[in-house]
Amino acid sequence: MNLKLIRRTLGIVLLFEAACFCLPLICAFLYHESEWSIFAGCALLCLALGFVLKWNTPKDMGMYSREGFVIVALSWITISLFGAIPFMLTGACKSFFDAFFESASGFTTTGASIFSDVEVLPKSLLFWRSFTHWVGGMGVLVLLVAVFPLSGGSNLFLVKAESTGPAVGKLVPKVRKTAKILYTLYIALTTAEIILLLCGGMNLFESLTAAFGTAGTGGFSVTNSGMAGYSSYIQIVVTVFMILFGIDFSVFYLIIIGKISHAFRSEEVKTYLGLIVAAIVVICFNCRGIYGSFIGGLKDSAFQVAAIITTTGYSTANFDAWPELSKTILVILMFVGACAGSTGGGMKVSRILILLKSIKKECKIAAHPKTVHKIKLSGRMVEHETVRAVNVYFIAYVSIFALSLLIISLDNFDFTTNFTAVASVMNNIGPGLAKVGPLENFSLYSPLSTCVLTVDMLIGRLEVFPILVLLSPYTWKK
Amino acid sequence: MNLKLIRRTLGIVLLFEAACFCLPLICAFLYHESEWSIFAGCALLCLALGFVLKWNTPKDMGMYSREGFVIVALSWITISLFGAIPFMLTGACKSFFDAFFESASGFTTTGASIFSDVEVLPKSLLFWRSFTHWVGGMGVLVLLVAVFPLSGGSNLFLVKAESTGPAVGKLVPKVRKTAKILYTLYIALTTAEIILLLCGGMNLFESLTAAFGTAGTGGFSVTNSGMAGYSSYIQIVVTVFMILFGIDFSVFYLIIIGKISHAFRSEEVKTYLGLIVAAIVVICFNCRGIYGSFIGGLKDSAFQVAAIITTTGYSTANFDAWPELSKTILVILMFVGACAGSTGGGMKVSRILILLKSIKKECKIAAHPKTVHKIKLSGRMVEHETVRAVNVYFIAYVSIFALSLLIISLDNFDFTTNFTAVASVMNNIGPGLAKVGPLENFSLYSPLSTCVLTVDMLIGRLEVFPILVLLSPYTWKK
Repeated sequence: MNLKLIRRTLGIVLLFEAACFCLPLICAFLYHESEWSIFAGCALLCLALGFVLKWNTPKDMGMYSREGFVIVALSWITISLFGAIPFMLTGACKSFFDAFFESASGFTTTGASIFSDVEVLPKSLLFWRSFTHWVGGMGVLVLLVAVFPLSGGSNLFLVKAESTGPAVGKLVPKVRKTAKILYTLYIALTTAEIILLLCGGMNLFESLTAAFGTAGTGGFSVTNSGMAGYSSYIQIVVTVFMILFGIDFSVFYLIIIGKISHAFRSEEVKTYLGLIVAAIVVICFNCRGIYGSFIGGLKDSAFQVAAIITTTGYSTANFDAWPELSKTILVILMFVGACAGSTGGGMKVSRILILLKSIKKECKIAAHPKTVHKIKLSGRMVEHETVRAVNVYFIAYVSIFALSLLIISLDNFDFTTNFTAVASVMNNIGPGLAKVGPLENFSLYSPLSTCVLTVDMLIGRLEVFPILVLLSPYTWKK
Repeated sequence: MNLKLIRRTLGIVLLFEAACFCLPLICAFLYHESEWSIFAGCALLCLALGFVLKWNTPKDMGMYSREGFVIVALSWITISLFGAIPFMLTGACKSFFDAFFESASGFTTTGASIFSDVEVLPKSLLFWRSFTHWVGGMGVLVLLVAVFPLSGGSNLFLVKAESTGPAVGKLVPKVRKTAKILYTLYIALTTAEIILLLCGGMNLFESLTAAFGTAGTGGFSVTNSGMAGYSSYIQIVVTVFMILFGIDFSVFYLIIIGKISHAFRSEEVKTYLGLIVAAIVVICFNCRGIYGSFIGGLKDSAFQVAAIITTTGYSTANFDAWPELSKTILVILMFVGACAGSTGGGMKVSRILILLKSIKKECKIAAHPKTVHKIKLSGRMVEHETVRAVNVYFIAYVSIFALSLLIISLDNFDFTTNFTAVASVMNNIGPGLAKVGPLENFSLYSPLSTCVLTVDMLIGRLEVFPILVLLSPYTWKK
């Protein structure tokens, strides 16, 4: 294990976080908030620590699979830990566990909160909270890879460990250029949303935070009513952008470089859009008794379906009061998640497709054991290694889910609350049902449960393996 | 597809069912119940139809993998359909869906009931209901294989498709002899339990039905209070036998032939017993406030843990009123299930072990991609095919679970009820939580949901693939 390289990379991550702290610092200045000193202090702390860790460039800059996983896991834990400091120092959180929960919830783009009243919080803290979504959405190391020589050779192992989905698709042969393209697209789409929100009469602060939340598929709001208080125009803009940010970014790239027919060949994106339409239609019909008008029902169901499948978690309606069928659809969509290569969480549509195709393949094998059967996605054969990794991801996912459910049941809340709480954090959504429904928050849980749910967020965002590899004794054997 | 062989085998299954109907017929005579004519009629119907189907012995007696799966699936559907007739004709069930549910619940050893009051039912019907558990427990085709030449060659494909667990372990080289040994052990253990229950003051009718329910890990009771009304002695006997029937029968065989050290090497059985002890200890501690005495709490938690992990589903306590931790443990144990090669349902401990070891293996691969890593169980290497089949079983299981949950949510009951209802039927347990808790029943569901839950029982008992292979268009291609 190349410990020196790990140390150096963590140093770079901290330097990056120091730079991130400058934005809420500016925000605090603009709003004349005394919290500027806290953000300045955090920036200086990260800067100093980052420099110390980065100082000595190791001779061996070799990075392999295990270093990739360990660096990604440690980077996300580090960035979440330091990101929690402002929540403590501003007095917004009383306990460190709550602050860590809130910070990890930001970076992992979960958007689950322990605050019952966000409107009393300083603007600069709200800005920081939403900005962490944007940083976490596309990935911290993907960004660093784009601008910095993190290792001696290729940075593929890092990008592999951090990227979402069953297999990393490089847009161009070079990892670094791929990372640059991804971030360019990300910035362009975010800017487009900000402009459209400004046009709808939102002020700059609200537009920025709302766009950060949408882009990262996070879901932190700066108002207590979430997105319910905004105009239909704003809600429709957010709905459309949530859906866009849940799409595989390589599709946008293909469209831009003119390969439109290639872009529309993606089985994953077609299934994703098909699922959204199907869910909206069923929920709209199922909730017809609740809404006076068809348009009102359609708007809310479209918003909520988009918010849940993309794992953003914004809300315009209290879907906990919807009929059970609609709620069950939302719970299932929580697990499905968005497309691989998007900023969304969940298991990802392509994984679900591979899993379902594995079942089909096994049925074929059972019927005709001697014929060779292959799994294809978007017309291309899926490698055996990928299928196995997807299967095991699923098993690990469900096992961690069950273990988390068991531990948090110590707090003696009902099954629906606990189940959807874990589903919500592991899929990086935000709200669940019952006591963690869209009108509620996560402050009810004990420090132990808060800790478990925080770890679940990281496990969910990093898609299980980086954290497992970090904790596996085998990784650390010579 | 050898359709003639399928027809012939279904004929034999019906002849077997005709023989089964003779037992409740005798029961009806003994209790002077007019229902004897119904059972006689059912027996004659099965006899006639069985003879017609069996009449022509096909020239080609070849049976392959797909015939094995299709025969097993169709046999279980057939036997459940015909087994439902007495529930209709006695007037116990108003709708055919309810009767089919009750019959499938019997054969699949689920023990979920739609009756709120079983004490008003004729004794012969209660006997039939419990006897179906015993028939389904060890398997219909396993029994037929033991006594009948079902196919030209080996009957391994049939036994493979019907047996529980990830891989079929033959006790002796011949499938037929293995089946005979299994049934001999099954009869011996059941007889031992009947004798012990008689010694505890139960009458013969109660002893027989209780033993059938325990042996098949079914759980139908002949009293409304389940097992709560019986003495501590009876409850302890049932607890011990539930645990015994959840153990891999090959362990008993190894003990009998003197290979005791071999028997105690089974990682699955050790884990199974370990899980039982751990669950009892935690639940006993967690429920200490509910029970006045330590012994009372221990007795109920031991009984309930044994009833749930073996998927029997008897109850002595209303565990729906237990603290959330205890309930969550029971819900998790529902999925774990008993050992492979036992009469118990659920996913089986060995599958869980293989699944967990797959995760460990994947972590090792992530850390050291170029080293070869193997999965071992009880010191022996698990074949790649078995691991893949277990993984896909798990995926298919969860997918069917999610689909069932979605459909039954149309009835608008709460999430806990629906989730545990599906968990209960797919794992062949009986009671769930909330509205399908141990004091409740399944009569609340609509015909559509009842149908879905019935299919889930069959899918659970046959461990997913037979039903999927039956429904797969690929199976029927030339």
